[in-house]
Amino acid sequence: MYRTHTCGELTLNDLGKEIMLCGWVQKSRDLGGMTFIDVRDRYGLTQLTFNAEDDDDLRGRARDLGREYVIRVKGTVIERSNKNLKIPTGEIEIKVAALDVLNPAKLPPFLIEDETDGGEDLRMKYRYLDLRRNPIRNNLVLRHQMAQATRAYLDEQQFIEVETPVLIKSTPEGARDFVVPSRMNPGEFYALPQSPQTFKQLLMVSGFDRYFQIVKCFRDEDLRADRQPEFTQIDCEMAFVEQEDILHIFEGLIHYLFKKVKNIEIGKLPRMTYSEAMRLYGSDKPDTRFGMQFVELNTLLKGAGFPVFDQAELIVGINASGCAAYTRKQLDALTDFVKRPQIGASGLVYLRVNEDGSLKSSVDKFFNQDQLAAWAQAFDAKPGDLILVMAGPADKTRKQLNELRLEMGNQLGLRDKNKFSALWVVDFPLLEWDEETGRYHAMHHPFTSPKVEDILLLDTDPGKVRANAYDMVINGTEVGGGSIRIHDKQLQQLMLRHLGFSEAEAQKQFGFLIDAFTYGAPPHGGIAFGFDRLVSIFAGLDSIRDVIAFPKNNAGRDVMIDSPSTISQEQLDELKIGVKV
Amino acid sequence: MYRTHTCGELTLNDLGKEIMLCGWVQKSRDLGGMTFIDVRDRYGLTQLTFNAEDDDDLRGRARDLGREYVIRVKGTVIERSNKNLKIPTGEIEIKVAALDVLNPAKLPPFLIEDETDGGEDLRMKYRYLDLRRNPIRNNLVLRHQMAQATRAYLDEQQFIEVETPVLIKSTPEGARDFVVPSRMNPGEFYALPQSPQTFKQLLMVSGFDRYFQIVKCFRDEDLRADRQPEFTQIDCEMAFVEQEDILHIFEGLIHYLFKKVKNIEIGKLPRMTYSEAMRLYGSDKPDTRFGMQFVELNTLLKGAGFPVFDQAELIVGINASGCAAYTRKQLDALTDFVKRPQIGASGLVYLRVNEDGSLKSSVDKFFNQDQLAAWAQAFDAKPGDLILVMAGPADKTRKQLNELRLEMGNQLGLRDKNKFSALWVVDFPLLEWDEETGRYHAMHHPFTSPKVEDILLLDTDPGKVRANAYDMVINGTEVGGGSIRIHDKQLQQLMLRHLGFSEAEAQKQFGFLIDAFTYGAPPHGGIAFGFDRLVSIFAGLDSIRDVIAFPKNNAGRDVMIDSPSTISQEQLDELKIGVKV
Repeated sequence: MYRTHTCGELTLNDLGKEIMLCGWVQKSRDLGGMTFIDVRDRYGLTQLTFNAEDDDDLRGRARDLGREYVIRVKGTVIERSNKNLKIPTGEIEIKVAALDVLNPAKLPPFLIEDETDGGEDLRMKYRYLDLRRNPIRNNLVLRHQMAQATRAYLDEQQFIEVETPVLIKSTPEGARDFVVPSRMNPGEFYALPQSPQTFKQLLMVSGFDRYFQIVKCFRDEDLRADRQPEFTQIDCEMAFVEQEDILHIFEGLIHYLFKKVKNIEIGKLPRMTYSEAMRLYGSDKPDTRFGMQFVELNTLLKGAGFPVFDQAELIVGINASGCAAYTRKQLDALTDFVKRPQIGASGLVYLRVNEDGSLKSSVDKFFNQDQLAAWAQAFDAKPGDLILVMAGPADKTRKQLNELRLEMGNQLGLRDKNKFSALWVVDFPLLEWDEETGRYHAMHHPFTSPKVEDILLLDTDPGKVRANAYDMVINGTEVGGGSIRIHDKQLQQLMLRHLGFSEAEAQKQFGFLIDAFTYGAPPHGGIAFGFDRLVSIFAGLDSIRDVIAFPKNNAGRDVMIDSPSTISQEQLDELKIGVKV
Repeated sequence: MYRTHTCGELTLNDLGKEIMLCGWVQKSRDLGGMTFIDVRDRYGLTQLTFNAEDDDDLRGRARDLGREYVIRVKGTVIERSNKNLKIPTGEIEIKVAALDVLNPAKLPPFLIEDETDGGEDLRMKYRYLDLRRNPIRNNLVLRHQMAQATRAYLDEQQFIEVETPVLIKSTPEGARDFVVPSRMNPGEFYALPQSPQTFKQLLMVSGFDRYFQIVKCFRDEDLRADRQPEFTQIDCEMAFVEQEDILHIFEGLIHYLFKKVKNIEIGKLPRMTYSEAMRLYGSDKPDTRFGMQFVELNTLLKGAGFPVFDQAELIVGINASGCAAYTRKQLDALTDFVKRPQIGASGLVYLRVNEDGSLKSSVDKFFNQDQLAAWAQAFDAKPGDLILVMAGPADKTRKQLNELRLEMGNQLGLRDKNKFSALWVVDFPLLEWDEETGRYHAMHHPFTSPKVEDILLLDTDPGKVRANAYDMVINGTEVGGGSIRIHDKQLQQLMLRHLGFSEAEAQKQFGFLIDAFTYGAPPHGGIAFGFDRLVSIFAGLDSIRDVIAFPKNNAGRDVMIDSPSTISQEQLDELKIGVKV
């Protein structure tokens, strides 16, 4: 036996007990004839004492222990004179009678402390050491708790977890697939799933009624800071449901998770249509932790002779309340911010409502004080407020102002990671125009159903067709999205035709699903949550990387195991493939 | 709203209620002016009635419904005159007031009934219809229950579920890897994990203390009837443990699963060493639902002048109790059975203990009645028993007799699928000799620790070294296996050297793990259960295929989605690979 207790559980109730502990040496200090060592495991820290007077040899061996040595001690629980009430074990210590070094340790390349001196690259190479740090381990414990709570809730709601295959078939629609050469079928490839979409729909055709899975998905995309080639979804589907049923069940899930894991009541989720979200926030995933809603100013500001406004499709602004005292330099910085290539605005107009009520704008020469007052009035501005206005093509300007709004939220400390604001965004467009290919793409995926009342628009004004599609948004991040699916063969074929599939292509790619619809497919719909993202929001993190045990870097590499790597010629030959580099 | 209730819940308590149901038409029959329809969903069956006198048009539409049509009805719960007490809803029926066809259905290619007329191939092509059948769906519900119960038990035991990566690195050791070309790192490949072995060991180095995961694993092997290229493991690892701790925790898991899911107490698991299992059953996964243990006869039967026995390394037999009346033809069939190429024995000797106590053997001319009596005595044979004996090289003969023993178990009905016999097999050899490569291979994997007292044998008699390795066996199937791992750099390097790795190869493949051992690795060990296999045993099935929602066939194909398939030249070009077929 290695231990009788863990390092996180002994208290004054255990005084006098003979115990055994195992763990890592966190730190060591000498004080007169004594050596004190903090031994650490997942469960906590316990202080060990070695007294030269009792056993000079043992004390000497304790002094030789380095950081991160793995040790086992036998000893007696005694009361501490110098108590640490910040940790559960802080009132006791162990008077050690025997010490074994189970494994020595080289000096770690960075400090194993909550705040480490290790850079990102070093921490990734030695991820197994980084995972020893409390903040990282706590993220993964949180992830575990959220996964178990998700399963408990869905199981209670009669969902069945079904594992769908990982080796599936490549489809050109959507993002790029990872593929797997098949040795048994030379020249052919499996693909790794971007989501179990078609399989969960088939499970509905099979009568499973309520399906879920916490499942790895894969996308071979160029990685941005916060994308991973493999990621995890909470994937769900239900039969005989309308949108309302799905929103109800999964609003329940998010309530349950916040309550169970963080003891937070987030309350009923408001709903906002896509067009409302775009109009008020310039984003389909508005951060509703703070207001600062858009105000449209076309009626008010056009025709005053300021060409930028007069020629703009849309003039729209926000009220950065309390920012009237922003200096010239701060205002210039904001202008530079919106002019960055990533945002691409041509400029920024401001209107200051000074503390004395006077008004000052960057376009004073085009507007008199009455006009400025009406302008301030439109934002319900109070003394001390700063109105920021942008103008240009409607869609583009909204997106630019969204960036500015988020930046102002940051500057004003309105995006508190410990505050949570969740909502549903509904009535997404079915299709979105792709400039590059010059055709419409499915905004969600080709299986999303259009609203019945909009179907006729498919032929006349496809961009106006709304889908039975919905996203859950928390703190400005889309954490989940889904739709009511098409369950009718004809409508599915019509949709694929509108997406540019020939009948032959449609049959080759999705024939099995279209066929399935002819054998009694129930109405169905579902949702998928980005689990990594959801955990990162619960953990108050910006990146998903620290809620993933072994993440890859932006080049898709695991620098710890040094993967991907070359494989042997023998492996290539068996697979009947060659490398052309 | 589609429904107020499911098809499995209405009873006499609901009489008079106005309800809505949805489901599939299971069957339909006419009786006088009435049409009765059974509507089915995952939860059960409910009978619908349509009376021509009430609504002739509605009744007409009901008559037109085909099998597997998806319908919605509104109606009233009434008491049934002709009750069916075999189902929970059998005392009521629905007097239907309104009927909607939600989706019509073509005639399914096979019967959607518990006993179907569909062959394997057809059922696989239309797996989504096969999954509608109760036996298949029940298997997947069982699987769900077992997964949730496993998680509940391990969570209670403070295990943390951690997701390890799917895109990892190819290692030549062990079975063949599936590989994934990396577009971002041309010429390089990821591999899909055969198990998360090294990652779970790293999690122990990280101090996670107790890890588990229900996880997909992959092996590109030529598929036998009961292998799948992707399969699921319950993968577990613990730190600061000895073998005894692991056996204790996971014996607890199996107790919990049997109790929770099948309400069976399987009792304490006996333990048997590998050498004992081989001696008594000729197998390291003995089916202990029945006795029929091996009896070795060298002392008794050698030297009687029967060359087959005299020259054999081992003479060994079993008592097929009650089979003395086997006819010549039956005995010949048994001889043919052991002579099949898959078994490869040269023959079979029998000794009959007739009902009158007389003895008759196939080698009478070499043995007198006293000798035959001693022979029978060695098996504790009673009148009516049949002794079956084989002879030859020890290992080979034991394996052959194991096959015969299992066959006799089948013939005698001793392998009841509703009876469960579990045990631990312990003290496996560390290494096994591979005839083909002429060297020793790790019997489990290169990270398994040898027993301390056997380490010195590594140099002198490697085949004799025992490992801290253990398997859990149920009903003659290995359901799980594991070991205490090496946690010491030097010992790991020694082991890899003995397995034929050069230092450079060892560093290239496992450098990250060996390095990790130098930064404070705790003693650790673990186990992995084959989840598909475990579920199939709980379900009383011979094959794992029917506990997998979408399995592949023996050529590794998913015939439903027609995968694997060719990919586009554009995809190949992006990946910088070419096909050489």
